[in-house]
Amino acid sequence: MRVEIISIGSEMLAPEGVDTNSLYLTRELNRLGLEVQLKTTVGDTKEILVDTFKSALRRSELIIATGGIGPTADDVTKQALCRAIGRQMTLDEEVLDYLKDRFARRGKPFPPHFQQQATIPQGSLVLKNPVGTAPGVWITENQKNVILLPGVPHEMEYVFHNSVLLRLREIVKESQILDRRVFKVVGLNESEVDQLLKEEMAELKGNISLLAGWGEIEIRLKVIGRDKAEAERIFDQYEAHLRQKLGSHLLGKGEVTLEGVVGELLREKGATLAVAESCTGGLLGSRITDISGSSDYFNRGIVAYSNVAKIEELDVPQELIESHGAVSPEVAKAMAEGVRRLSQTDYGIGITGIAGPTGGTPDKPVGLVYIGVASEAGTRVEKFILLGSRKKVKFQSAQKALEMLREVLLAKR
Amino acid sequence: MRVEIISIGSEMLAPEGVDTNSLYLTRELNRLGLEVQLKTTVGDTKEILVDTFKSALRRSELIIATGGIGPTADDVTKQALCRAIGRQMTLDEEVLDYLKDRFARRGKPFPPHFQQQATIPQGSLVLKNPVGTAPGVWITENQKNVILLPGVPHEMEYVFHNSVLLRLREIVKESQILDRRVFKVVGLNESEVDQLLKEEMAELKGNISLLAGWGEIEIRLKVIGRDKAEAERIFDQYEAHLRQKLGSHLLGKGEVTLEGVVGELLREKGATLAVAESCTGGLLGSRITDISGSSDYFNRGIVAYSNVAKIEELDVPQELIESHGAVSPEVAKAMAEGVRRLSQTDYGIGITGIAGPTGGTPDKPVGLVYIGVASEAGTRVEKFILLGSRKKVKFQSAQKALEMLREVLLAKR
Repeated sequence: MRVEIISIGSEMLAPEGVDTNSLYLTRELNRLGLEVQLKTTVGDTKEILVDTFKSALRRSELIIATGGIGPTADDVTKQALCRAIGRQMTLDEEVLDYLKDRFARRGKPFPPHFQQQATIPQGSLVLKNPVGTAPGVWITENQKNVILLPGVPHEMEYVFHNSVLLRLREIVKESQILDRRVFKVVGLNESEVDQLLKEEMAELKGNISLLAGWGEIEIRLKVIGRDKAEAERIFDQYEAHLRQKLGSHLLGKGEVTLEGVVGELLREKGATLAVAESCTGGLLGSRITDISGSSDYFNRGIVAYSNVAKIEELDVPQELIESHGAVSPEVAKAMAEGVRRLSQTDYGIGITGIAGPTGGTPDKPVGLVYIGVASEAGTRVEKFILLGSRKKVKFQSAQKALEMLREVLLAKR
Repeated sequence: MRVEIISIGSEMLAPEGVDTNSLYLTRELNRLGLEVQLKTTVGDTKEILVDTFKSALRRSELIIATGGIGPTADDVTKQALCRAIGRQMTLDEEVLDYLKDRFARRGKPFPPHFQQQATIPQGSLVLKNPVGTAPGVWITENQKNVILLPGVPHEMEYVFHNSVLLRLREIVKESQILDRRVFKVVGLNESEVDQLLKEEMAELKGNISLLAGWGEIEIRLKVIGRDKAEAERIFDQYEAHLRQKLGSHLLGKGEVTLEGVVGELLREKGATLAVAESCTGGLLGSRITDISGSSDYFNRGIVAYSNVAKIEELDVPQELIESHGAVSPEVAKAMAEGVRRLSQTDYGIGITGIAGPTGGTPDKPVGLVYIGVASEAGTRVEKFILLGSRKKVKFQSAQKALEMLREVLLAKR
């Protein structure tokens, strides 16, 4: 079944206009085995809307449109569809009663222009919207299905979930489903992953893709299976295969995060952690505490932004800062060991660096970061040169610190 | 001039597929006074692409398409356009020489399938792409302009900026420009702003919109002016008007951030700041240090996640925690005063709360947060009940803390 989505609303034609409704609908349609073949984003101009509906009806069997069915003069989606398929609009008394009742229960007079919400294309099925005032409609024309949904995301999702999904399932005749899974990789860059997975990239062409994010690479897989169970089985096979190829660089699947994985490892061991941050300014602690239940293993963080704070809060010897500079392997080590000792935790992390864009020197450029991880077994210190904006350097520094801690925790398992 | 954008690539039809190219192009076109009337996102299926180009040529005078002009078999954009307008493809010797030279200079043999990159629609203008291998093309057909650009964002931007912009400026006959400005509001929710700006919302209908973000509201204005200077003048008038209506709730315009504004106020006064965080886990410190030069006023942060850390690092009396609980106005006050005293700064902030999703009680629900701001003049403590996910509660807590500090700093100005 050929499917397309039409997103209606001039705000989505602005430079900031990201249409999240179509992303939600794509996810839901994929789960039914339906692939979206085209998306259109269009404003509230009736003439262009009529043309858009006509083109869509020529190409596709299922068309889902969102937006433009509200009570204002801008909302012309229903009229445009009627024009495109040559139908009349008609007042639905049941919807009108519902709307009047809704206002009455709030003790408010019924605004006359809301009658527009109860006017629907002749012969269409009303999709109730108890979380708003604009009901959706479903029209079948020449064995093609056109579904109009509200544009407000939570209303759209409610109506889709409660009035569209079951009916769609009935008419979807495909016995296959399309499923997607995302795997996350840390500690390798995109071309390294590409190189390690060269054969797979060639073999699964079109069904595998890499996406580089901040500090991690996503491997996105798409499979077609008879059903969910078969798709899961294929994904699990791929996962075992990827683990073999990528080793511990494979962080996990789906919504997995590095801070979540590190948290799990600490919890498994019953171990505790404290961190001492300079250039990251608290970001590492914030990421660690994004995980619910992190208070079980995260004891404290010290953001020692000034040298005085490094000396006072972390017992970093003043001479060490004077002889090596605040951004040095020696100070990273002293910070990690200091925060571990003072807070009596099993692990301590120290980060010191130059986030930029100012403050760099020829010897110590912007992006230079030293990270120390202290444990009972000793302290490991690494040097990094990180590229990008201030926020990116901060993020990558926190990422590298978590990666180092993960390696130390995995080695001791 | 009617304008539309076609984004080509099956990856953009996935549930994660956000098409950033069209956002960039929209911004650039708006600067030329051109409004985008329709956007299409489509995969690499030739037949659908041909139909898409035909529809676009019927509706619009300027069509910019991105993607699908690479060297692989998937890349069918140029062929589809030729089919739509009935032209032949032809080999461009100059492009071929450039490509061969590019490979030769890297000491690599020329892969035969790259010849496809040098094959262009007859009669088209080649748009050079020195940052990649796929040149763009510009075709004029029946006084309509079709521009094909690479899909890789930095290549697309390069080619647009260097080969498209000047030519577009020449053919744009409109003597008007469309400009946008964003204003940011803090400390009010969307319906409060809507209420305060009721008249403006009605008067500027279609040219003003509100967008609620985490902790702030954006007011987006669109104006049509004869030129940039006139647009700026109109925006400045609006800004003065908004300031009158919204007072200090109006944070500023454009990319302004609360942490940036607070930083400026601290710098103006030559004042220093230290923060003590519990439920935000370091996020407040991280946001403050997102600002370049924040080391001038930010002294340190203490992430006192455990009660022991609150006692040891911040001198919060143990009895206070025992009698009132860690999440209490008394402890927020003691944290703010403790961190200010110990770090000898002008201002101190203390945050304690329950980020959730677990850890709430009937008395102290998830989202309960106390924030203290200590200064020479005394300590102000406020209570908040914040809604949403753990990350959202953390973000709003940091936001409220910065708002409170801003108010204290503004009051003393």
